[in-house]
Amino acid sequence: MTAPLRIAIAGLGTVGGGVAEVLLERGQDLAERAGRPVKLVGISARDRNKSRKSDLSSIAWFDDCRALATIDADVIVELIGGEDGPAYELVKAALGARKHVVTANKALLAHHGSELAALAERNGVALKFEAAAAGGIPIVKALRESLLAYGIDAVRGILNGTCNYILTKMEATGQSFGDVLAEAQKLGFAEADPTLDIGGGDTAHKLALLSSLAFGAAPDLSLITVEGIEHITPEDIGYAREFGYRVKLLGIARRTADGIDQRVQPAMVKAGTPLADVEGPFNAVVAHAGAAGPFFLEGRGAGEAPTASAVIADIMDLARGDVGPVFGRPAGTLKPLRAAPPERRKSAYYLRFQVLDVPGVLAEIAGHLAQSEISIQSMVQRARSPGEAVSIVMITHESPQGAVTRALNAIAASDKVTGRPCMIPMEAG
Amino acid sequence: MTAPLRIAIAGLGTVGGGVAEVLLERGQDLAERAGRPVKLVGISARDRNKSRKSDLSSIAWFDDCRALATIDADVIVELIGGEDGPAYELVKAALGARKHVVTANKALLAHHGSELAALAERNGVALKFEAAAAGGIPIVKALRESLLAYGIDAVRGILNGTCNYILTKMEATGQSFGDVLAEAQKLGFAEADPTLDIGGGDTAHKLALLSSLAFGAAPDLSLITVEGIEHITPEDIGYAREFGYRVKLLGIARRTADGIDQRVQPAMVKAGTPLADVEGPFNAVVAHAGAAGPFFLEGRGAGEAPTASAVIADIMDLARGDVGPVFGRPAGTLKPLRAAPPERRKSAYYLRFQVLDVPGVLAEIAGHLAQSEISIQSMVQRARSPGEAVSIVMITHESPQGAVTRALNAIAASDKVTGRPCMIPMEAG
Repeated sequence: MTAPLRIAIAGLGTVGGGVAEVLLERGQDLAERAGRPVKLVGISARDRNKSRKSDLSSIAWFDDCRALATIDADVIVELIGGEDGPAYELVKAALGARKHVVTANKALLAHHGSELAALAERNGVALKFEAAAAGGIPIVKALRESLLAYGIDAVRGILNGTCNYILTKMEATGQSFGDVLAEAQKLGFAEADPTLDIGGGDTAHKLALLSSLAFGAAPDLSLITVEGIEHITPEDIGYAREFGYRVKLLGIARRTADGIDQRVQPAMVKAGTPLADVEGPFNAVVAHAGAAGPFFLEGRGAGEAPTASAVIADIMDLARGDVGPVFGRPAGTLKPLRAAPPERRKSAYYLRFQVLDVPGVLAEIAGHLAQSEISIQSMVQRARSPGEAVSIVMITHESPQGAVTRALNAIAASDKVTGRPCMIPMEAG
Repeated sequence: MTAPLRIAIAGLGTVGGGVAEVLLERGQDLAERAGRPVKLVGISARDRNKSRKSDLSSIAWFDDCRALATIDADVIVELIGGEDGPAYELVKAALGARKHVVTANKALLAHHGSELAALAERNGVALKFEAAAAGGIPIVKALRESLLAYGIDAVRGILNGTCNYILTKMEATGQSFGDVLAEAQKLGFAEADPTLDIGGGDTAHKLALLSSLAFGAAPDLSLITVEGIEHITPEDIGYAREFGYRVKLLGIARRTADGIDQRVQPAMVKAGTPLADVEGPFNAVVAHAGAAGPFFLEGRGAGEAPTASAVIADIMDLARGDVGPVFGRPAGTLKPLRAAPPERRKSAYYLRFQVLDVPGVLAEIAGHLAQSEISIQSMVQRARSPGEAVSIVMITHESPQGAVTRALNAIAASDKVTGRPCMIPMEAG
């Protein structure tokens, strides 16, 4: 194997620029490890004249990224982004032309993963996506190649650095969600349109991929319940701390007796456990690998170098000749996932009610909870100035989500309760 | 690729029995993921008549493990252990007979890694050892295949579960090293002869392998400074807690301006950092991967399922056809490692002196430290009953190890100082 592996990159933003730089500047080390040269032979981006960190003037340029599918290259690196449009067209064309594809595009794979996996395998090429799940953390490889002996019971993770940064900052400063978000946008830690991050959509894309690898199923976004962090208040974060928890946006995929439970949800994670201690822009994943026990992996979840590192890892797999099926099993054997009904999920819950300071309100809340057979582990009510709304905070014993939702709907209808009750599941960590 | 991958196992202890069980009971799932059957075709162990968890009566039995090198098998799994003797002979014979080898034997590879890697590559076969470094944690794969883009600056880890169990227990109970060790032996958490674990030798074996993967060098035990945990007292652990640290036995390999610094050493790890929070029998590794940042991996470091999980991962690599060079680069390109001189290592140090309660003792200690240009960050001295020995505890600013050792030798010679001064480096975590 001395023929070079020829790489073309579509998209020269932060990550694409980083990948190009590594290929140009660390080519010698990569070639020694791969046993063959790894060579950048083509690039495409929106603006040819933009100034870039590396001198790319000697690399063949293509105005239309789709042209890369037709050039003499072995691997197309897709770093354009977006679930449809040029990224989708390029990946399809490249796979169809029997070129390996490496991508960081979680949206694309969460939406079209099954189709693209089948196309790749039909053409005998690889579609690799380490950079699409948790930035630099090698969790795709771990689930696909390492943690196989006993199967996976659950994958749980902090998969969105923007959300984790916002929640960590809210906890440290007591600021509101809106203030921290505005600041993060100014600092470039959050997008101008942050919906996909803070609404949980990005975490859902990544969870769909991890779930597919873990459970041998086709990725299916429609089976994931998604809740974002927009409604988390400094008050909730303060109570969490008081109870010995921290609020984290988790992606969770778990095998249960009722099927696979998949959700993206802010959760109260027990302080002192690995997931609770993940700070700022870091990502982390816990993989529960049967008798082999839990594995915890933490690292930077986004940004140039961590993402480029994951892309380079995929390229190096291909340089060594490791093609392998896209989601760890041949696309034809990926089963549709049997989804667990959300209402049967069991968890302890943090509940916060905003109530008027009038007689009978606690009795009414307690009555509705009792009617749904939800029992209370602990409760806090703080005095406020007379006439102000009061928070009543409770932690329930383990209860089915459906029962808790029913009770909360009944409680929300009371004229003594102001605003929508807040409900956050507790996670052991 | 539908021909089965034929596996033979040498050694049917805890781990070997676990691997056999997974191959027999989860063969269907493994075959689907590998795209071909993975089949147990031969076994060898010391005692044929020992009762085992799985029914192995249909698998060909060999009294002499070395016979496995000659049978119709593709992969020999060596789980005999020991740096020489049958394990070494079997691995050499198997590689020479162009059979892949998977092993959990860190002693063998730390001592004979270069020779065996060259032999494997000459014969076009693999020698895989995920289970030899940190139990179930996929750190070998991460260093060999994932964290390549920016090179590795340092690998630091808790690599011996027995030591971590003992230190965690000493901290929780205040018991002495000897008492906890005796208890651990009774519970089967420590070997009857625990020297290799508590003396740091096992950690050194594992560190030699991680270092080799990280720095592209041949494993070389002779370059690792090794210190065990036998001299750690409950008093040191108590002071560590007081200063906001926890005592952990670390294996550290770090690129410095003077070369690669490799050592196994109890260290005070800053509380609240991931390594400090690793409890009981768990292992963990931090890989500092250049601009991609630190990666942290934690999991069970030993025992049947975690180790079998790592062995199965290696087998599955081979089933997919991923052979690749043993230490991540062709054996011929592994450079001898340039070792950093230990005396130039810079660190802050925890120092504890046992002194007589007489005038002038502090002046004498402070004088010797000043003479070696070591400055003190903080100090604690506690009153004792009159006439009893007193502990003086100091944390130094960052100082070269050579200077601290010189000062300590001078201090130890004083007739006001009883016993050997204790010196533990501080680690940021």
